[in-house]
Amino acid sequence: MRLRHKPWARETLAAHPDIVVAQPERYRGKWHMAFDKSQPLYVEVGTGKGKFLTEMAQKYPDIHFIGIEKYESVLLTALERVKKAGISNVRLLAQDVAKLDHFFAEDELDRLFINFTDPWPKNRHERRRLTYQSFLMQYQYVLNPDGEVHFKTDNRGLFEYSLQSMSTYGMAFHDVSLDLHKSGLEGNVMTEYEERFVQKGLPIYRLEARFTRGKVGALYKDYKN
Amino acid sequence: MRLRHKPWARETLAAHPDIVVAQPERYRGKWHMAFDKSQPLYVEVGTGKGKFLTEMAQKYPDIHFIGIEKYESVLLTALERVKKAGISNVRLLAQDVAKLDHFFAEDELDRLFINFTDPWPKNRHERRRLTYQSFLMQYQYVLNPDGEVHFKTDNRGLFEYSLQSMSTYGMAFHDVSLDLHKSGLEGNVMTEYEERFVQKGLPIYRLEARFTRGKVGALYKDYKN
Repeated sequence: MRLRHKPWARETLAAHPDIVVAQPERYRGKWHMAFDKSQPLYVEVGTGKGKFLTEMAQKYPDIHFIGIEKYESVLLTALERVKKAGISNVRLLAQDVAKLDHFFAEDELDRLFINFTDPWPKNRHERRRLTYQSFLMQYQYVLNPDGEVHFKTDNRGLFEYSLQSMSTYGMAFHDVSLDLHKSGLEGNVMTEYEERFVQKGLPIYRLEARFTRGKVGALYKDYKN
Repeated sequence: MRLRHKPWARETLAAHPDIVVAQPERYRGKWHMAFDKSQPLYVEVGTGKGKFLTEMAQKYPDIHFIGIEKYESVLLTALERVKKAGISNVRLLAQDVAKLDHFFAEDELDRLFINFTDPWPKNRHERRRLTYQSFLMQYQYVLNPDGEVHFKTDNRGLFEYSLQSMSTYGMAFHDVSLDLHKSGLEGNVMTEYEERFVQKGLPIYRLEARFTRGKVGALYKDYKN
């Protein structure tokens, strides 16, 4: 994604505390308090400009959606979208996904979306890929045992890597599609990236996955030290 | 593969006991006796006309290769290829892969190849796919704990299914390629099918996998009853 510096981004995000949650740590374990009621909680990591998140939230009003994006100038567009849609079941965090367990308690999430995330193709950047083992460990920690990871990308290398990383971590796949838009999957909500790639006729890779091994224990405690 | 009835097939196979092993059960647990020495043992299930098997055997003389193919009229072509190549590290079995544990003892194999196998696309034929759970159980039984399954296909649906079936069985993937001939993998030996698909510019899917969970126990004993 092309990043444009917007010096007013931080200020605008801060001016919308009803949507953009500052200090998300305070809702850890009690995110229903950040909304007006209790509903299943779905999180998108690397939510970008928020097209997917907003459309999903419109489509599923009985779900709470939280989008995490570290670039404030990008999240600004997501904020505008959410405002325009006039929906109340979305919150946005201008945060780093690596701190996921600071924002959510063990088992607190029901689903996690990873959409068209940065592929970091160089070997030496492996640890930055959002399907690297340390991230999977975090996802498992915050997801409840029936929770699922839904992942899609146009990047073949990232998808190949993720199949390896996730299966090695003991995740089981279902609804795998190696050409999403020829697979007949219904109800797919497209991201901005996705629309562009599909127009070019390029395949989109997608999978859903569950964790099959026991959790590694309380991550958060370790981090607090 | 188009099957042509060849009434002379059985007779010709029987006339080459040095290559085509009748009653393979008698070598169970002692396949080195079917060759002239002890070497690692690689098996291709559904070996077809034997192009891959023969070329691999020529390339790796320090490995013993066994090809299993239930259609005698097809295996006949494999026999001709092996004879023409003048190699002594290949044996052929005109057998059903479902009986793999009758032919090989627990831990006896080092590697197993599944190449361009019948996709059986209908849901009701799932159990016939060579990556269905009951086959995976057999592969795990006959492979030693470090043994690997190498699988490639042009069939997207079969590959998607296999990713699900294998990960659910607890297999971990490595060297996954979703477009083999653009991946830069070296030393790939092509099957007849593969050559045809690559000429058409279609992607070939490939993976290597290991078993990560404990074996389910002695299959063979159960079958003997």
